[in-house]
Amino acid sequence: MALMSPQSTMVAAGRDPWSVSEFEQRLRGIGETRYHDKHPFHQRMHAGELSRTELRCWTLNRFCYQRALPVKDALIVSKLPSREDRRAWLRRIVDHDGAVEGVGGLERWVQLGAAMGLPEQVLWSGQGVVPAVRFAVSSYVGFCRDRPWLEAVGASLTELFAPDLLSARVKVIETQYPWVDPAGLAYFRHRLTEQPRDIAHVLDLVLTHANTAEGQNAVLAALEFKCDVLWALLDGIAAAPGDPDPDSA
Amino acid sequence: MALMSPQSTMVAAGRDPWSVSEFEQRLRGIGETRYHDKHPFHQRMHAGELSRTELRCWTLNRFCYQRALPVKDALIVSKLPSREDRRAWLRRIVDHDGAVEGVGGLERWVQLGAAMGLPEQVLWSGQGVVPAVRFAVSSYVGFCRDRPWLEAVGASLTELFAPDLLSARVKVIETQYPWVDPAGLAYFRHRLTEQPRDIAHVLDLVLTHANTAEGQNAVLAALEFKCDVLWALLDGIAAAPGDPDPDSA
Repeated sequence: MALMSPQSTMVAAGRDPWSVSEFEQRLRGIGETRYHDKHPFHQRMHAGELSRTELRCWTLNRFCYQRALPVKDALIVSKLPSREDRRAWLRRIVDHDGAVEGVGGLERWVQLGAAMGLPEQVLWSGQGVVPAVRFAVSSYVGFCRDRPWLEAVGASLTELFAPDLLSARVKVIETQYPWVDPAGLAYFRHRLTEQPRDIAHVLDLVLTHANTAEGQNAVLAALEFKCDVLWALLDGIAAAPGDPDPDSA
Repeated sequence: MALMSPQSTMVAAGRDPWSVSEFEQRLRGIGETRYHDKHPFHQRMHAGELSRTELRCWTLNRFCYQRALPVKDALIVSKLPSREDRRAWLRRIVDHDGAVEGVGGLERWVQLGAAMGLPEQVLWSGQGVVPAVRFAVSSYVGFCRDRPWLEAVGASLTELFAPDLLSARVKVIETQYPWVDPAGLAYFRHRLTEQPRDIAHVLDLVLTHANTAEGQNAVLAALEFKCDVLWALLDGIAAAPGDPDPDSA
């Protein structure tokens, strides 16, 4: 019963586990209603309505989340049940940190910042990161540290909904925010190549191991929790006091 | 003050930090008195005095420790302060688990078991692992999960004392326990090639970052704790009820 979260206990009472395809459909259904592409700030971003200050604020605050990803992935590695799964999940840490210096997802995010005029040392300093963002990120890391591995892994399922958003974002920034150096978009392009592999692994893990009603509910709850994390990041960013910026659109 | 452990607080009162070389000397001094090569069971092993049952019992119980190593290493990765350090520490997880299926330290330990007639499924089942060993291993993983990264890393410093022991062990098993298939000794031979790199990294980390009296004391205490873990493993193994074994020497 370690996989049960309080709310799922009630929902699970008396039902049989869903079939794999029904379970997957329900997971995907969460994206349709709760993924952060529906957030007003995100919709403004993709409509080209953000000022330079706002887009920089998003990049800066989102870096607080990005840099926590190898940390939560290492916590997940520490609790995965087999060498095979650890080996597969380890690739995510290498994707973030790079196999050698000067590459990797964090480095590419730094390049995204540079393409918007954000100096690397500002990104790493955490300066300008709003408390709501720090708290949401810290809750996510804490979730991966404290919850059973199936839930920690389940929280990564927001990846299911990311590819469409990432391809759209590349086009949006190129067309709506032409002041951003396009070289800075490598992060998003690169994620599009890494993500199919990650999605296949995480889906396989949850569809294989969440084979009770309780386990399925716990994974659904984990995915909802993660949607809340991403949503709260945007709440915080939207509410951030933007510097008065003479360049703002 | 997060690095201070209760006992070190007292010792540290009023002293300046040691120089790097004095600190390193004190770390090495711990090995001279507390490393598990001084344990009576270990001395019997290296004198060729263990029965087949006892040597198998050591291999089986020690596997409980070996399989926890990638877990504690992932916990350490989750708390290391930089991409560079995570990248370097990640190699340890790959060393244990293998970069692909069928290789890696755990696989080689399984081969060591096979060379003594221990079936792989017995090793993975945990059958025959005595509670004292499980508790010591669990304490070590808990230490790496709960303590500051410098202490978690400091606990790995027993590696400083391992190379001599490992080379001696290969010769001892070849000569004193000729019934062990020599192909099973690949684990020890391979560790001898990985360890110099690991030792250089862990020494660099602690000598660089433990630069206060409190930090130095905390690392010394972590190393003593780890010596206790290895010692307790052998206490448990020595006290294990060996199966009556007609082949025993």
